[in-house]
Amino acid sequence: MLKRYLLAPGPTQVPPEVLLAMATPVIHHRAPEFADLFGRVRNDLKTVFQTAQDVLILASSGTGAMEGAVSNFLSPGDKAIVINGGKFGERWGKLCQTFGVHVVEIKVEWGQEVDPQLVHEALRKDPSIKAGYVQASETSTGIAHDIKALAELVRERDETILVVDAITALGVFDIPTDAWALDVVVAGSQKAFMLPPGLAFVSVSEKAWRLAEKAKNSAFYFNFKKERDAQAKNQTAYTPAVSMIVGLEAVLRMMKAEGLQNMFARQRRLAHAMREAVQAAGLSLFTKGRPSDALTVIAAPPGIDGQAVYKQLREQYGITAAGGQDHLKGKIFRLSHMGYVDTFDVIMGMAAVEMVLKDLGYPIRLGQGVGKAQELLCASAQKAG
Amino acid sequence: MLKRYLLAPGPTQVPPEVLLAMATPVIHHRAPEFADLFGRVRNDLKTVFQTAQDVLILASSGTGAMEGAVSNFLSPGDKAIVINGGKFGERWGKLCQTFGVHVVEIKVEWGQEVDPQLVHEALRKDPSIKAGYVQASETSTGIAHDIKALAELVRERDETILVVDAITALGVFDIPTDAWALDVVVAGSQKAFMLPPGLAFVSVSEKAWRLAEKAKNSAFYFNFKKERDAQAKNQTAYTPAVSMIVGLEAVLRMMKAEGLQNMFARQRRLAHAMREAVQAAGLSLFTKGRPSDALTVIAAPPGIDGQAVYKQLREQYGITAAGGQDHLKGKIFRLSHMGYVDTFDVIMGMAAVEMVLKDLGYPIRLGQGVGKAQELLCASAQKAG
Repeated sequence: MLKRYLLAPGPTQVPPEVLLAMATPVIHHRAPEFADLFGRVRNDLKTVFQTAQDVLILASSGTGAMEGAVSNFLSPGDKAIVINGGKFGERWGKLCQTFGVHVVEIKVEWGQEVDPQLVHEALRKDPSIKAGYVQASETSTGIAHDIKALAELVRERDETILVVDAITALGVFDIPTDAWALDVVVAGSQKAFMLPPGLAFVSVSEKAWRLAEKAKNSAFYFNFKKERDAQAKNQTAYTPAVSMIVGLEAVLRMMKAEGLQNMFARQRRLAHAMREAVQAAGLSLFTKGRPSDALTVIAAPPGIDGQAVYKQLREQYGITAAGGQDHLKGKIFRLSHMGYVDTFDVIMGMAAVEMVLKDLGYPIRLGQGVGKAQELLCASAQKAG
Repeated sequence: MLKRYLLAPGPTQVPPEVLLAMATPVIHHRAPEFADLFGRVRNDLKTVFQTAQDVLILASSGTGAMEGAVSNFLSPGDKAIVINGGKFGERWGKLCQTFGVHVVEIKVEWGQEVDPQLVHEALRKDPSIKAGYVQASETSTGIAHDIKALAELVRERDETILVVDAITALGVFDIPTDAWALDVVVAGSQKAFMLPPGLAFVSVSEKAWRLAEKAKNSAFYFNFKKERDAQAKNQTAYTPAVSMIVGLEAVLRMMKAEGLQNMFARQRRLAHAMREAVQAAGLSLFTKGRPSDALTVIAAPPGIDGQAVYKQLREQYGITAAGGQDHLKGKIFRLSHMGYVDTFDVIMGMAAVEMVLKDLGYPIRLGQGVGKAQELLCASAQKAG
């Protein structure tokens, strides 16, 4: 018997009340009942995105919305800055290339954050740059780029937008779309939104919509203008993922009950405890600089293969976490604590990491990292803090 | 946000595959489909009870089957030994009184096991004693009485049966019904059977059926002979709890896949780790003697109210465990590890206990008990062991 636990940076755990909601009979997407539901979730999504703009809901993974965030705003031959400090930064580059966009790449060492000064200089050097593409939380390395600082760089430029992949950021930590003047913000269902994969969300600023008017790329399924017009009437251009929308309503109800800032505080507290626990156990964090609260990226200790850790976690302990990608394969392993997570997800994750390392022959004192997490997360410490 | 965890000695955790099975549309209990299902679960239940006899399935809690285990076999004025060493031993006494059975009570201090010699003497003193009533696992104190030894005492007596409340024992540890010649064995769905409350199971030996022929008590709903005759035809005397039976089939499939002895070994390993962890944390086990592997009963440490521990676990950490009953209220708290449980249920339970005691001001070193559980439960230790 092997119980299964999900501590991967997506998909994440889905609360029972959401699973239950999604298991109710499918309603028809052109029935008034659906339009009412869609109106309610559209409204509540604005709160979560902290925007007065409409938030489009797409039946796709986050990458679909990322594609639309290139194809809807830029034309072949346009120039865009891509901040590439990981697997998902790289993806922005590939998307731009696919749509004939000329990429001004700012390469960042994996695990580090981008220096806004470099972006500032790249922008100043070339007034024709139409967009900057960046991750608020780079899931492959655990870094959180300084979105607020980057947004300030494009804020005053009428013809330049900042496009933020907030797939593992939105709902985890504070990304106030309107307050920071973020032009396009992309999120996905299977992260802090506590849903299965299958929905993407995207907010679009007025400036970005103006760019969209002039863009000459082809977009059919991910045609944001068409979706905007349909969704304004609580309809969708194409068949929506109905049960996912039903689940989304349940999620938004939970988020409202907890409150956005409390939600951020909970995940910050868990992430902090996990990072401290890892270090108390004598291990090293891979991420240097501003860590994303969505996940903890741990450097494989000397002599230990990070993939073996990932594999042992899954096969011996039933825990699905994540290994490293590309050149980080074997060098790191990643545990998430975003969405539907609490104290015991962190304690379980830390306990399992200690046990796996012991299994693999690494000298570790069992309970040391866990003890630190307990210390930081016990109710009395929280009250005192 | 408070995630909920169930570490109570019943109801216990229900596996997702069982919940899913129970959520399928209700079938009619007089349809051939139900008879087929009922035949399959009846067959597999014999394997779990380790008996060639039929195992009756009742739509009731375990107490219903306990009632039947008195009313079906004894008549008013009959004599029975009741081993009373806890809340559930006491219940046998109340049931006997309700049905006019004269009780020869063997009182056992709560937390201790019965001395079979005392039972032997009581039986020898009075050849008219028709039955002995005992718990295989006394949930209120965590003790496991020596059922094998007790069974040997009545084995040679043609007119005396041993009735075993195995509600928190069957499926947890080895209770071979036929090999030990146990006459009546009672179990319930919400314990190691990993189901919600609502079903009781009872096996009846040939000797016990002979007694039932002569018994003169009234039993209508819990009429075992009527159930035996109906169930032999894969029917039930009264409406069965259909969805529970569907869930039971899913449970029996899981049990078969794991294997009975592996199931016992897993729960024994978890129980052992929990007991060792508790002691490594500097706490004391309440149970003296043979502990039941179903649960760990911890003595509230000096100056700490056991009920406060139970309450803090639930309210601050979302963990439902159990406090003490009657005169043990405040003096103990109880955590279960039976049924659908693994390494992380023990680690979570121990971590939470440590945190709660710290919250309540008790000096405890966080991670110490947890570290012991990790040490005993890590995959490499299990392989080595």
